[in-house]
Amino acid sequence: MKSIYSDDSLALHTDLYQINMAETYWADGIHNRKAIFELYFRKLPFGNGYAVFAGLERMLEYLRNFKFSESDLAYLQQEVGYKEDFINYLRDIRFTGDMYSMLEGELVFGNEPIVRIEAPLVEAQLIETALLNIVNYQTLIATKASRIKHVAGEETVMEFGTRRAQEMDAAIWGTRAAIIGGFDSTSNVRAGKLFDLPVAGTHAHSLVQSYRSDYEAFHAYARRHKDCVFLVDTYDTLKSGVPMAIKVAKELGDKINFIGVRLDSGDIAFLSKEARRMLDEAGFPEAKIVVSNDLDEYTMLNLRAQNARVDLWGIGTKIITAYDQPALGAVYKIVSIEDENGVMQDTIKISANAEKVTTPGHKKVYRIIDRENGKAEGDYICMHDEDPSSEERLKMFHPVHTFISKFVTNFEAKNLHEKVIANGEVVYESPTVEEMKQYAFANLDQLWDEYKRSLNPEAYPVDLSQKCWDNKMRNIEEVKEMVQRTVDEIEGA
Amino acid sequence: MKSIYSDDSLALHTDLYQINMAETYWADGIHNRKAIFELYFRKLPFGNGYAVFAGLERMLEYLRNFKFSESDLAYLQQEVGYKEDFINYLRDIRFTGDMYSMLEGELVFGNEPIVRIEAPLVEAQLIETALLNIVNYQTLIATKASRIKHVAGEETVMEFGTRRAQEMDAAIWGTRAAIIGGFDSTSNVRAGKLFDLPVAGTHAHSLVQSYRSDYEAFHAYARRHKDCVFLVDTYDTLKSGVPMAIKVAKELGDKINFIGVRLDSGDIAFLSKEARRMLDEAGFPEAKIVVSNDLDEYTMLNLRAQNARVDLWGIGTKIITAYDQPALGAVYKIVSIEDENGVMQDTIKISANAEKVTTPGHKKVYRIIDRENGKAEGDYICMHDEDPSSEERLKMFHPVHTFISKFVTNFEAKNLHEKVIANGEVVYESPTVEEMKQYAFANLDQLWDEYKRSLNPEAYPVDLSQKCWDNKMRNIEEVKEMVQRTVDEIEGA
Repeated sequence: MKSIYSDDSLALHTDLYQINMAETYWADGIHNRKAIFELYFRKLPFGNGYAVFAGLERMLEYLRNFKFSESDLAYLQQEVGYKEDFINYLRDIRFTGDMYSMLEGELVFGNEPIVRIEAPLVEAQLIETALLNIVNYQTLIATKASRIKHVAGEETVMEFGTRRAQEMDAAIWGTRAAIIGGFDSTSNVRAGKLFDLPVAGTHAHSLVQSYRSDYEAFHAYARRHKDCVFLVDTYDTLKSGVPMAIKVAKELGDKINFIGVRLDSGDIAFLSKEARRMLDEAGFPEAKIVVSNDLDEYTMLNLRAQNARVDLWGIGTKIITAYDQPALGAVYKIVSIEDENGVMQDTIKISANAEKVTTPGHKKVYRIIDRENGKAEGDYICMHDEDPSSEERLKMFHPVHTFISKFVTNFEAKNLHEKVIANGEVVYESPTVEEMKQYAFANLDQLWDEYKRSLNPEAYPVDLSQKCWDNKMRNIEEVKEMVQRTVDEIEGA
Repeated sequence: MKSIYSDDSLALHTDLYQINMAETYWADGIHNRKAIFELYFRKLPFGNGYAVFAGLERMLEYLRNFKFSESDLAYLQQEVGYKEDFINYLRDIRFTGDMYSMLEGELVFGNEPIVRIEAPLVEAQLIETALLNIVNYQTLIATKASRIKHVAGEETVMEFGTRRAQEMDAAIWGTRAAIIGGFDSTSNVRAGKLFDLPVAGTHAHSLVQSYRSDYEAFHAYARRHKDCVFLVDTYDTLKSGVPMAIKVAKELGDKINFIGVRLDSGDIAFLSKEARRMLDEAGFPEAKIVVSNDLDEYTMLNLRAQNARVDLWGIGTKIITAYDQPALGAVYKIVSIEDENGVMQDTIKISANAEKVTTPGHKKVYRIIDRENGKAEGDYICMHDEDPSSEERLKMFHPVHTFISKFVTNFEAKNLHEKVIANGEVVYESPTVEEMKQYAFANLDQLWDEYKRSLNPEAYPVDLSQKCWDNKMRNIEEVKEMVQRTVDEIEGA
């Protein structure tokens, strides 16, 4: 049974182990040591050549309000069993650190930090789960939307997926992300209100069934709504739906704005061509055909190959759940921590898999843009005290296959991170969602087409500076030595 | 940019077309006609032989609070453009109908109503989107969880997926659904608080990295936490992680409760066997091995086939997103509506696809249970005025392939619907989530094993009564005649 709390807080929206670690750090007195964490994913979703970042605004709202409520603290003490001294400490925790982030609508690639948190260790740790929960989903959906919009081109794409979304937050934040990625509108009215998004929709089969007649239902709808899209597949698309839509449009003439018809089932390729022919013959060449029914970029390409006549696309399940890959695997890793002497020490996580070894240290990420053609040459990760702009001739090499390299000249180096929180204060105001979408479109213009095709795109380079690479190798060596000491010690024991 | 409203309401969490239809009904004066809608899905997810229903409690909360807020109304009028007369009408709408529903933890199959709404047309219409949003996701996750628990058997299964969930509601309602489906605990502390669920978790790689040593980190953790599971794969699982866990366990002895070690990467089959051997040799045969890393029922079966030594399973991405099929396709269809004379008229939606034709009329659904062995023989959908209990010998036949039939005797007919809302008042109190889980287990005991296997299960029968079938055929005939009249009229014109 659900308990109702007037002070339900998102500070508790975290994994239990984060609170256990916070307690460990606090009990051990290292909780206020400065730590740097980076949030990034390793592999692009959907086999796409880029991702579109979304989720910053939700993260800022979360961090601004980060605070355990009294009912949270009571739960942690009474039900989970934390001791009172630690509970009292938790009561006063707020997020007091700095956050650097890409902006929503930025293009992002594998293994580059989207977000960097510089904060007391305990704070940086407690926020991990929620930040990943937000970025993973929203970035996934913005990226899927961008793929679909890439296929749609100038045609309108509407998000219709609320009923299939993974619960309510996904419906509203997902459709916002879809619009950042290039969608035109949403059917979700609450999302329209909260995020100032264009809303779209006309009527469903139940209207026609309630009147038990296409003709009666279309008439009833048209009496109250000037803009009319009639859904024509309740009984028989070509024998009843389309003819009755045409009949009502003719009868009402200028009294309505007959926008067109919607097809939601059956063979869309065939029905759209037939509906187009019937509308044209009836004197409605301007009438639009809206289609929906489990569509995504693959079915859209396929329908187009069959010369389907579609003007507007309604996309539901496949966008709102990112059906073909419903999770992005972003992680949040510590890269540097203050030692007992106040000196930052880089830290690494080792793995048998080369791609899973983290890149330690305080770093920055730049997009290297060719000044001649305005196109991006790749992204460049360097230590925080490096400045690629100062280089005449920049060497870029692959971070795993290091023998793959190139030199770039006459370039601009754009720092992809903005400081959005300073000492716990949000210092960034989000633009409108429409502005984020336009920013994404502008960023896509900087990308060569070869990175943008939906099937088998070229891999966009994300490279490490020499200094960053050397630092990583040094950290790996140190861990190897530490492990060897452990082995020696055990064998000696 | 997100607007902050103190009165954000879920009444607006709907598709725009629902409000357009509401306006049409209201303007036309048919909004208060009694309507019956049914919520059901057509196809079981994951190729499973059954689904586990979840979502009732969230629906009850939604319907109890259904009300457009002032900021909703202002948005609808000023931004969407609805006229003031309709806005004033919307202001007073509440849900005043009846709701019949299966209980959470009930087993449900394709094409049988999970929920039946009997309400004024306008109310039944406005709530569609939110009900589907809730049931589709929660039932999907409870079903996936049941599949995973079926493989795990007596072993413990923990939900660890928040960071990969599709936004925040999915994380909390999803983990609740996972526990209804058979999971033992969650890592999400907020879900633990809200739904009174067992929470689980110890520490992450960042703890080890913060101390830059397995040994130091385990010691620090153990100083404050009696129950210890040490994560051993930060640097080198077999050379450092497991040996240091053993060393700390030996040093601290009875001061801690050394539960075991967790593996989160690498070759789990190999590492778990090696870790088992090392723990046994060190005198910790009772120590448990916890594994996590993109697991689901398929990898679990596979690991078991390789004799992996696993005691507890941490499942994340694959459960919380239902990764292999991230959407359930439940629909909500009108089956009957009052006419101008106050008589209920059944209504149907036709499709070229036989499975997509709706089954009209006011119906009930019974589970037919063999009194001798206590096993379910199938589900039986009949008209509301039929009572299968009164039959000596019940004929059950396939609703599409009608020549497949059988007779059942000595059976009990269990009505699967409970009246949970009467005249808008919630008259049902949800049990605890643990009770829902036990209810699901008890229901599974009624099912033959052949319906429960995860690969290629037998199809469980969901059959229509003869009367229900005849009514459907009559409705199809009526629509065919109506369409023919339309064709004749157009050809005559």
